[in-house]
Amino acid sequence: MEHLGRHVIIELWGCSDAINDPEIVKTAMLDAVRAANATLLNIFVHEFSPQGVTGVAVLSESHLSIHTWPEHGYVAADVFTCGETTKPRAAAEVLAERFSAEHSVVHELERGVLPQAQPRGGAPKVPRIRSLANA
Amino acid sequence: MEHLGRHVIIELWGCSDAINDPEIVKTAMLDAVRAANATLLNIFVHEFSPQGVTGVAVLSESHLSIHTWPEHGYVAADVFTCGETTKPRAAAEVLAERFSAEHSVVHELERGVLPQAQPRGGAPKVPRIRSLANA
Repeated sequence: MEHLGRHVIIELWGCSDAINDPEIVKTAMLDAVRAANATLLNIFVHEFSPQGVTGVAVLSESHLSIHTWPEHGYVAADVFTCGETTKPRAAAEVLAERFSAEHSVVHELERGVLPQAQPRGGAPKVPRIRSLANA
Repeated sequence: MEHLGRHVIIELWGCSDAINDPEIVKTAMLDAVRAANATLLNIFVHEFSPQGVTGVAVLSESHLSIHTWPEHGYVAADVFTCGETTKPRAAAEVLAERFSAEHSVVHELERGVLPQAQPRGGAPKVPRIRSLANA
């Protein structure tokens, strides 16, 4: 193991009005947690006035967060997991599908890159980032 | 305004045993939220066995999350804010100080870069990332 966590950063554009519905957002989050093979500890969803939804799911393996801007058709989501058995990118796919995103940009960061995986002779250089999808 | 959110990604190494104490972590989170000039909607902190703490604060301006690995002296924290009046980097400074981090690496991502700020002729290219500190 070279790093402690995987952090998938998800930008969704051209989303449907579903992103303004806190119940739809909550259901999508729960399904995304299941798709990631993660364990839910707590979920909190808040509806803003006049629009917008924020939801955070705390996981045994870290967290999943969603912030929506319906006026821009935009969703910012993050799936942070640890452990060898989680699939954070599967969560990203569920969210993009549920919100009918026209464009999705997904990056993955390695969080907590361990000293033995770091360049020699310096302080830890993290996070490492790589692009996964830009469709 | 060119982007909807600011996402500060914080890697702390060489932290003290404080990162294994859920009460200390919660207090640090609340102080970090105040330093960021953000408004708390909800906070959830979980203590793992045999070690480790996860905490997520949901904010009117998005969220603050912390995951700790005491066995590695490591903390992964994220502060995601929107609005013109928040100071997510101030939250990062509070956390590094409270956990006596020997090394901190802080990056800031622009989330939700608006179409008029994107390169022409393509799908949105986000997030943009820049390094803030590597001390």
